[in-house]
Amino acid sequence: MDEFELIQRYFDKHSVQRDDVRLGIGDDAAILRVPPGQELVVSVDSLLAGVHFPDDLPPKAIGHRALAANLSDLAAMGAQPAWAVLALSLPQADTGWIEEFARGFFMLAERYNVALVGGNLARGPLNITVTVHGFAPSGQALTRRGAQAGDQLFVSGCLGDAAAGLQLLQAHQQATETDSCVQRFCFPEPRIHAGLALRGIASAAIDISDGLAADLGHLLKASGAGAQLLVERLPLSPSLLRHYSREQALNLALSGGDDYELCFSVPPERMPLLESHLHALDCVVTCIGEITAAKILRCLRYDRSEWPLPVSGYKHF
Amino acid sequence: MDEFELIQRYFDKHSVQRDDVRLGIGDDAAILRVPPGQELVVSVDSLLAGVHFPDDLPPKAIGHRALAANLSDLAAMGAQPAWAVLALSLPQADTGWIEEFARGFFMLAERYNVALVGGNLARGPLNITVTVHGFAPSGQALTRRGAQAGDQLFVSGCLGDAAAGLQLLQAHQQATETDSCVQRFCFPEPRIHAGLALRGIASAAIDISDGLAADLGHLLKASGAGAQLLVERLPLSPSLLRHYSREQALNLALSGGDDYELCFSVPPERMPLLESHLHALDCVVTCIGEITAAKILRCLRYDRSEWPLPVSGYKHF
Repeated sequence: MDEFELIQRYFDKHSVQRDDVRLGIGDDAAILRVPPGQELVVSVDSLLAGVHFPDDLPPKAIGHRALAANLSDLAAMGAQPAWAVLALSLPQADTGWIEEFARGFFMLAERYNVALVGGNLARGPLNITVTVHGFAPSGQALTRRGAQAGDQLFVSGCLGDAAAGLQLLQAHQQATETDSCVQRFCFPEPRIHAGLALRGIASAAIDISDGLAADLGHLLKASGAGAQLLVERLPLSPSLLRHYSREQALNLALSGGDDYELCFSVPPERMPLLESHLHALDCVVTCIGEITAAKILRCLRYDRSEWPLPVSGYKHF
Repeated sequence: MDEFELIQRYFDKHSVQRDDVRLGIGDDAAILRVPPGQELVVSVDSLLAGVHFPDDLPPKAIGHRALAANLSDLAAMGAQPAWAVLALSLPQADTGWIEEFARGFFMLAERYNVALVGGNLARGPLNITVTVHGFAPSGQALTRRGAQAGDQLFVSGCLGDAAAGLQLLQAHQQATETDSCVQRFCFPEPRIHAGLALRGIASAAIDISDGLAADLGHLLKASGAGAQLLVERLPLSPSLLRHYSREQALNLALSGGDDYELCFSVPPERMPLLESHLHALDCVVTCIGEITAAKILRCLRYDRSEWPLPVSGYKHF
């Protein structure tokens, strides 16, 4: 079976149908329409076997994660997902693997009405690169910039689960698939609804892919600000606390990657607006600290003593 | 040096500046504006070491080819290039390599005013995936569909050079860099100007990445048509004919990939329009045959005897 037949068989037919796709997969390029008044929001992410996930991760989880990591970037921008293009390199044309990968990818794509509009399939070491496209009304996309001293700092959901899930997977391959931390690693939920609801509320936002401390660091750098983080406020799941001590769990929450939760700041005057929109967020949010003018990230205990910052997040090189 | 510093150092500063980029590299996603009345044209391509190019190809050529392969898809659609996102996985953070790669990439990007608006850098086997974005006025993009019986069939430039260049590179690594066939393999020129000039003239178009016979086959399939190809009309460069017999050269022109020329069809009534626009194409075009209603590709000699079709183009699996 050649590239073209493979693509057609597993990727073409699943595509979500959207009116703004004038020409999808199958030509030299896709032809797409951005609605009037909307800006285009574009992000790219690659997942590599052995780097971003264990080699033997189920292909359905790989398919889900490849799209989820990208949708999470759109969530952080407050963008409405629309289209994806997928470049997949595979050691061999294993149709069973592709079928499961496609299942994971398209289940998530359907949930957020994302049409696959382009693809490239090649033989090579496993590498999945997805470029996603979304929309935000002109001028309304969220960015990392804009956090100011006095803004309250929040995270969505619970932190540390995915890092714990990865450790569990690496420790005892089997028999852990039902563990909810492992599920969080395999099937992270991009916080699209939260991102959309936070337009006009958050002053800055970022998604947590490399760990809270590292990603918050990026937000602070872009905003030219610092923060006081009350580490003991970090939201932890019961599942995480069954596997780790509270101290260990908080460190995972601080430095563990792959959660794909959002970290965002809200100016004091918009706090009532946040409170009146909590129903639209689809996940809990927790206040974890405050933006400061001093350009450092201080991690504190409730008693204001310093929490030693763990080794910073995932380094790509 | 970590991922972020690398990206910033080699990729951020080079970016072409465009008014339609509201936010470029450095946030979770780029924020972009598609001009009113334009459709967005999007394509993705991956280049893998050892698959699409020899491992030891100079990084400057790899950078050029990675973007050129994608721009060629925009050319085939008659789209004006605008933005690119780059996902690069590298075995190690070799700054000399990245610098040369970036040089090749950005020299081409500057020529066509393409802004790099997003990137991802990871450690792994060499893999370069580029997604390009261009514009075409609504409804005017070219596609593979639309060729009809009686349309004249054309190619741009000369064919077979890149395949010959690759063979030369593989045969004697050194001392061939100045050969013009090797140059064609290393630094293919995407036919952007030709693609733009062919809007409203060509009934169908495709770029030749896998070989004329294979890619023309895709155009014919999409158009529900066939073609008679006069093989002896295929345009050959003097350089190619210095390396190969005419018979061998014609077979390279038929089945060799990587030329990134355009193959397109023109209805008889639009031939005067083509002739009056030849100055805008920036390359010669050659009539190589005619579209037929019979849904097969026939390769003929001038005397109308059959030219045996070579093994079809590059198979990705």
